[in-house]
Amino acid sequence: SRCYKVMILPGDHIGPEIMNEVLPLFEMLSSKLDVSFQLMERRIGGNCLDLHHCPIQPETLQEAQGCDAILLGSVGGPKWDRGDSENRPETGILRLRRHLNLFANVRPAKVISESQLAFSSLKPERVEGVDIITLRENVGGIYFGPKVEPGPDAMVASDLCEYTREEVARLTRVAATLSLSLGGKEPLAIHSIDKANVMASSRLWRQVVKETIRSEFPQLEPKLSHHLVDSAAMVLAKEPRKLNGILLTENLFGDILSDLTSVIPGSLGLLGSAELSGAPIFQQGSESPRPKGVYQPVSGSAPDIAGKGIANPIGMFESFAMMCRWSLDLTRVADLIDEAIRTTLDRGECTIDAGGNLSTREAGQAIRRFV
Amino acid sequence: SRCYKVMILPGDHIGPEIMNEVLPLFEMLSSKLDVSFQLMERRIGGNCLDLHHCPIQPETLQEAQGCDAILLGSVGGPKWDRGDSENRPETGILRLRRHLNLFANVRPAKVISESQLAFSSLKPERVEGVDIITLRENVGGIYFGPKVEPGPDAMVASDLCEYTREEVARLTRVAATLSLSLGGKEPLAIHSIDKANVMASSRLWRQVVKETIRSEFPQLEPKLSHHLVDSAAMVLAKEPRKLNGILLTENLFGDILSDLTSVIPGSLGLLGSAELSGAPIFQQGSESPRPKGVYQPVSGSAPDIAGKGIANPIGMFESFAMMCRWSLDLTRVADLIDEAIRTTLDRGECTIDAGGNLSTREAGQAIRRFV
Ligand SMILES: CC(C)[C@H](C(=O)O)[C@@H](O)C(=O)O
Ligand SMILES: CC(C)[C@H](C(=O)O)[C@@H](O)C(=O)O
Repeated sequence: SRCYKVMILPGDHIGPEIMNEVLPLFEMLSSKLDVSFQLMERRIGGNCLDLHHCPIQPETLQEAQGCDAILLGSVGGPKWDRGDSENRPETGILRLRRHLNLFANVRPAKVISESQLAFSSLKPERVEGVDIITLRENVGGIYFGPKVEPGPDAMVASDLCEYTREEVARLTRVAATLSLSLGGKEPLAIHSIDKANVMASSRLWRQVVKETIRSEFPQLEPKLSHHLVDSAAMVLAKEPRKLNGILLTENLFGDILSDLTSVIPGSLGLLGSAELSGAPIFQQGSESPRPKGVYQPVSGSAPDIAGKGIANPIGMFESFAMMCRWSLDLTRVADLIDEAIRTTLDRGECTIDAGGNLSTREAGQAIRRFV
Repeated sequence: SRCYKVMILPGDHIGPEIMNEVLPLFEMLSSKLDVSFQLMERRIGGNCLDLHHCPIQPETLQEAQGCDAILLGSVGGPKWDRGDSENRPETGILRLRRHLNLFANVRPAKVISESQLAFSSLKPERVEGVDIITLRENVGGIYFGPKVEPGPDAMVASDLCEYTREEVARLTRVAATLSLSLGGKEPLAIHSIDKANVMASSRLWRQVVKETIRSEFPQLEPKLSHHLVDSAAMVLAKEPRKLNGILLTENLFGDILSDLTSVIPGSLGLLGSAELSGAPIFQQGSESPRPKGVYQPVSGSAPDIAGKGIANPIGMFESFAMMCRWSLDLTRVADLIDEAIRTTLDRGECTIDAGGNLSTREAGQAIRRFV
């Protein structure tokens, strides 16, 4: 019998509320399958700042390294907004990314159920069939380059955006794996996004993406295209289906474009994300070591609705499913949860933001019924 | 009688086609008003590369400095896409920006006519009343910071994003002028966009924007808010009216967000833009020196429709109107053209992309009738 170590980081505001809805899954799965889970609940973000005066404890970072996966609720809120970077909730997430070398951030955005179309800001005929995975470089670029901080009387401040060949190549390999594994018969299109007409690091990006695909995945060459980030933003807002497939991009562009993409299919509360230390393994039973991952809904901590019991737990279930699929060896569980999400959405058994009238608790129950 | 010097840069692909439609305005205005124009037509972009092996000639940059304003069509196309940065059409534009110190890029996006709503990818109720001006820093940041270029076997490449206090302060002053002058009774909201939770240059940005408004425009303090760029992209795609007013932002974020914003109201072919060397002067007859400006439609060179006579000239007329308003002393002409654009759009007298069936030439005529 396999035992998985999973770290639970509920976080702030709606984080613990939606986390509560997936926690029962661990017992349900242990009782049905030949697996067990060792759960470790820890603090991150604002609630960690309040208690420990740091956004994540060094011990937590160490323990996380010993886990198979980390499930995260959400982090941050107005209460902690004024702090310098040492004292910001988000810094907890940035440290986790770096410490575990989670260089591949996978953020899928797709229309799961027709019922979502009513909630998109885009016209239904523009949204139907949208299926975009942002694959964002997650531990490099301007996020982690050397900085000149502005003092109180600062005359200047700066950030360096630097990329190495290997940082680009390893993410390109993840893009190739996703394209081949998720594409079914046809590999998915890979849209590499950069600003190569202006930035030197983007010129390296484009060059290395091209070379890596040509030399290591020649069968994907016809699937690869290059787009400027400004034009990609325009296309996403206008004809998002044109960018169906994988958006392969650097850290800052990925931050902006994934947020943009996430609102296209309708409710933000439906989407999960993964931050991975390597390419996901898709084969059930494969002996290859699986990447570590932090799995987290994209909806954020939503302070405005916290405590009301109306937060949408689906993004948390989706994150749970991605964890089962990629960091654990539980593909069939992942399929089951995905199917349960689709069914409940189709039936309108969901929270108000997605067109239903269920509470967080009831929406969670509705999905767990199928597990 | 006042004589204005105006440089004409038709550029590539549809550039000359739409430029042709505004050129007759100069004679029409000279014959009706007590003004004359000295026009200087020069090359920029691909057609300049073809003839002179550089994207803009040094003489042209010098002559531009002696002009009151520069009217630009569009630049670039697949033919010239492979060049290094010395040999790219866009480099012509970047040099013009730097040489004339056009630090303030103003890109308005609004719904002028109900007829546009059909062409937006967003649902009409989300687009109605959108009125957003992106004010982008145009000569600093990562565009012009020191670069480490990737060689053929490069292991690393980088770009520095650097801002000085004064670069941020002077653009903030332009934002304040726009807010006060364009807002009518209520000044426009100023939404400053940054990534202050991650970037040091953004932390300087936020600090200087705050201080400049507090000390120089205290009456605008209640109008000022700060947003993270990822969240702003999300709001623009979801509820764009929430960001009505001025988006005050740095070069790269402005590039991405202005392109995103430009597709929201429907046809891209309707929008003009201004790149200015100072705050615009709104008072007709004011003796203060007016800023130099490059005025250009946002639609780009559109190689796919070039030569077909179907390009929308309205963005070019809009750019002409902005030139009259801000770099010349011809406010009433600007008002007249804006009114003509609205009337022809309402009547469907426009090109196919905006719902009509007129050619570029006919659409131009339709507008010129009112001048
Ligand atoms: C919280 C913040 C540091 C983070 C980022 O910018 O990466 C967030 O916006 C995200 O996209 O995960
Ligand atoms: C052509 C290019 C260099 C330019 C930019 O990135 O500034 C363009 O995208 C723009 O927005 O004017």
